[in-house]
Amino acid sequence: MGRATERRRVVRVRDGAVSARPDTLAAEEPLEIRLNGRPLAVTMRTPGDDFALATGFLVSEGVVASADDVRSVVYCAGARDDGGNTYNVVDVRLAPGVPVPETGLERNVYTSSSCGLCGKASLDAVRTSTRFALGAGPVGVTPGLLAALPEKLRAAQRVFESTGGLHAAALFSAAGELLDVREDVGRHNAVDKVVGRALREGRLPLDETILLVSGRASFELAQKAVMAGVPLLAAVSAPSSLAVELAAETGLTLVGFLRGRNMNVYAGEHRLDLDGAGVTTLRG
Amino acid sequence: MGRATERRRVVRVRDGAVSARPDTLAAEEPLEIRLNGRPLAVTMRTPGDDFALATGFLVSEGVVASADDVRSVVYCAGARDDGGNTYNVVDVRLAPGVPVPETGLERNVYTSSSCGLCGKASLDAVRTSTRFALGAGPVGVTPGLLAALPEKLRAAQRVFESTGGLHAAALFSAAGELLDVREDVGRHNAVDKVVGRALREGRLPLDETILLVSGRASFELAQKAVMAGVPLLAAVSAPSSLAVELAAETGLTLVGFLRGRNMNVYAGEHRLDLDGAGVTTLRG
Repeated sequence: MGRATERRRVVRVRDGAVSARPDTLAAEEPLEIRLNGRPLAVTMRTPGDDFALATGFLVSEGVVASADDVRSVVYCAGARDDGGNTYNVVDVRLAPGVPVPETGLERNVYTSSSCGLCGKASLDAVRTSTRFALGAGPVGVTPGLLAALPEKLRAAQRVFESTGGLHAAALFSAAGELLDVREDVGRHNAVDKVVGRALREGRLPLDETILLVSGRASFELAQKAVMAGVPLLAAVSAPSSLAVELAAETGLTLVGFLRGRNMNVYAGEHRLDLDGAGVTTLRG
Repeated sequence: MGRATERRRVVRVRDGAVSARPDTLAAEEPLEIRLNGRPLAVTMRTPGDDFALATGFLVSEGVVASADDVRSVVYCAGARDDGGNTYNVVDVRLAPGVPVPETGLERNVYTSSSCGLCGKASLDAVRTSTRFALGAGPVGVTPGLLAALPEKLRAAQRVFESTGGLHAAALFSAAGELLDVREDVGRHNAVDKVVGRALREGRLPLDETILLVSGRASFELAQKAVMAGVPLLAAVSAPSSLAVELAAETGLTLVGFLRGRNMNVYAGEHRLDLDGAGVTTLRG
């Protein structure tokens, strides 16, 4: 598809000087995800890795957990008025025997409205739907290893340099080796793409990996990490209260404000080697 | 409710030194929006201004356009197992005669799945559902006036300073006077809160105002600006391709990368005074 960016004319103002020139924008298009032919969700995303995005979304929702759960993924043909393909509708067919969720899953709907809607209910929903228990590993991850990850992510971001408009999610081994990186206008989509690619390659659960996101860590991103079996989530910016609560409940290690050699650990510090060489412990 | 932030213990790593202390987090909780008693959408938001968030969301979806369209907004009581109120479910009752949307609105679902899902369909959906045509004003806005807005926004952000975890949306007059600012873990919620408060005060359409958002400008944010009649949307970071297309189609002025005295104008430059005093025109 190759539609991750678009060129548009832009008027630039630089210190009072005005000029017009073409500029590169991050592409945004809707993607409808269908499950066994039935519309399930629509997300605004950057085109590319759409099959991974759709299957990764289904991992996050607890519908699939391995490549064997998926029979096929196709673009729906003839979706446009003129019969052409928009490449914006993807249908995922489940393998025989894989249960189809009874009710329509809607993005951001984690709870039944019959009970009191609250953060706790959201946490419960993750706990009851997760397919993977978070394992022990990785252990002994040092702050120095974590500190090096954002730069590795930035180095791997090809599109970001030209548009500045994309969120990124990167998967690393416990040794800090970059395994995958995906970009999207939506941070949740970038994570779904990484997870979906791992699913296809039989790498779930991602129990010996570190997931790094370029922005904030919301509940939704922490949920996606837990559902894919990722034991360590690191974010360049702040986590939300509910992301921290989910991490504390599930045993997810959650690192925020990962900038230079500085970082905050919000939960799951048992996986980190905070007393390693060169680290002075000054616990308050 | 006063739940915009929460205190949690955090382990801080600063240049190899480790310490533990309480830290402030941006609160995140689900909010279910009901319309005439029927569940409509769930959004993860920072508690506070929930009635404004709910009604602003309905402005964005084309359901209401003035305070008279709303009969009442209430928290649903007794939603928790123990009968207590979670303050996470809001019911909006429409005034008699205001049409209830036939199908369930779902966040991010802008199109009928019967036609080809594409950016153009998303643009069409906004065009057919908007209640306000974007007017002429404001006109003659100078880059200097725009350049001063981000600092005014930051000065008004009380919570941001302590958590670093909140998006902000601010409304300014054409003269650059701050009219309102709201914060949320979700940028779309921050905009809905600003719009909902304006609705309640009879200030829609917001046709002589400038809306500033702290992050990127997605299609969804541009849509919300158009639906509220805001003629000028400025963002600190990059816009997406579809946000620019929507702006170009509807006549919305869209400014991105508003940083210091620099900015990019992606659409609707006719509202800006780019040839004003002190501005050198070097059109390419």
